[in-house]
Amino acid sequence: MYKLVLLRHGESAWNRENRFSGWADVGLTEEGLAEARAAGQLLKRESYTFDVAFTSVLRRAIKTLWTVLEEVDRMWIPVHASWRLNERHYGALQGLNKAETAQKFGEPQVKIWRRAYATPPPPMEDGDPRLEIGNPRYSDMSQRDVPRTECLKDTVERFLPYWQETIAPTVKSGKRVIIAAHGNSLRALIKHLDQVSDDDIVDLNIPTAQPLVYELNEDLKPLRSAYLGDPAVIAAALKAVANQGKAKIA
Amino acid sequence: MYKLVLLRHGESAWNRENRFSGWADVGLTEEGLAEARAAGQLLKRESYTFDVAFTSVLRRAIKTLWTVLEEVDRMWIPVHASWRLNERHYGALQGLNKAETAQKFGEPQVKIWRRAYATPPPPMEDGDPRLEIGNPRYSDMSQRDVPRTECLKDTVERFLPYWQETIAPTVKSGKRVIIAAHGNSLRALIKHLDQVSDDDIVDLNIPTAQPLVYELNEDLKPLRSAYLGDPAVIAAALKAVANQGKAKIA
Repeated sequence: MYKLVLLRHGESAWNRENRFSGWADVGLTEEGLAEARAAGQLLKRESYTFDVAFTSVLRRAIKTLWTVLEEVDRMWIPVHASWRLNERHYGALQGLNKAETAQKFGEPQVKIWRRAYATPPPPMEDGDPRLEIGNPRYSDMSQRDVPRTECLKDTVERFLPYWQETIAPTVKSGKRVIIAAHGNSLRALIKHLDQVSDDDIVDLNIPTAQPLVYELNEDLKPLRSAYLGDPAVIAAALKAVANQGKAKIA
Repeated sequence: MYKLVLLRHGESAWNRENRFSGWADVGLTEEGLAEARAAGQLLKRESYTFDVAFTSVLRRAIKTLWTVLEEVDRMWIPVHASWRLNERHYGALQGLNKAETAQKFGEPQVKIWRRAYATPPPPMEDGDPRLEIGNPRYSDMSQRDVPRTECLKDTVERFLPYWQETIAPTVKSGKRVIIAAHGNSLRALIKHLDQVSDDDIVDLNIPTAQPLVYELNEDLKPLRSAYLGDPAVIAAALKAVANQGKAKIA
């Protein structure tokens, strides 16, 4: 039986401002850093430790991971950063305020863009300065493959090869793995692990900086999964995420 | 022509208390963290960037490195942590105050223990709780090889294979490398690069958190080397390091 810990980054500046982040490299807020520290302390209290870590190439995930590794005294373990664990690319919506976008296009349309499995937001156009062309952290990607937008299906498709070829064999080797990533790259993984349908994944939300522990059998099928933290805190955090796309925040 | 940046960690709690650190995993002080940030900002202002980083398995070096990588926006590059870049093991002196040790054994003896090339401090004895036996960060070492003390010659001998087999080929591949390590593991490297004699290395000191840039030819022979920072600051920092082993701090 294997244990795998998933962790969404702490609150970022654009989470706080309720803006679509996507591949924008937004940092953590002080609150987000405190959340990451609390996640690390919780993992330490519960005697979790790690041999290898995987993360995205975005600073909000990496900083969350580093903060956890510092708390659990594992700063020296190998950390692998891959764009395949990046947040879903939000296309032309990147940087826009979620509530304002809902006012403009209506909540149903925004829910589709935020959560529909196969409908991407409008793409960035040629010459958009937000396109990650020439950014050295993507130098291992063909420039043709730099996304202009993604639906969750696209995120699943670029994440799964990394899971299959790199992370899953590491878990099966017996190494204790933590993945510090993003709402949608973690939804992609959970969809795969739990075989969530394209329809049901729409309503699956992931709170920031709450360690989610999967127990997996020898074929990496989930035996059980649960957040490590206080259930009341998790419930409140989940509600906050679900409400972000509303025209008026509850 | 290759450039290689060497960086000793910022001030640690035991630097501040003037205690021998060795392999003890002491954290940075607030001042040390600020020094690391300043080093990162200096590197950024001077347009340095990095493709790969090497560090020890000790938190004061890793935290210094992470802080620099955050400042230069390279948090996502591969970081390799190896015990071969650890500080020199200080044997039975580990944790003792340098000035008190000088009062007890005399400054000349302490200078020998601190700086003599081939004379190690007294070893830790069997059962010493400071011995790093069973520490997971050393699980890739044979337990027989866990040091009980080291002179600089020993540090050179365990560092050089890592330089030859791993770091040097990375530099030669054209990747821009930063090494964030310790006073004595960096002295070991400098001794090798600059062919410093066993006698002359005694008086070579390295200030904390001052980027030291080596320009190397295709055979990795130094063309020139210089600290990046303000020469007056470097001179003052070097004097402070040299004075640490005195019975009374100047």
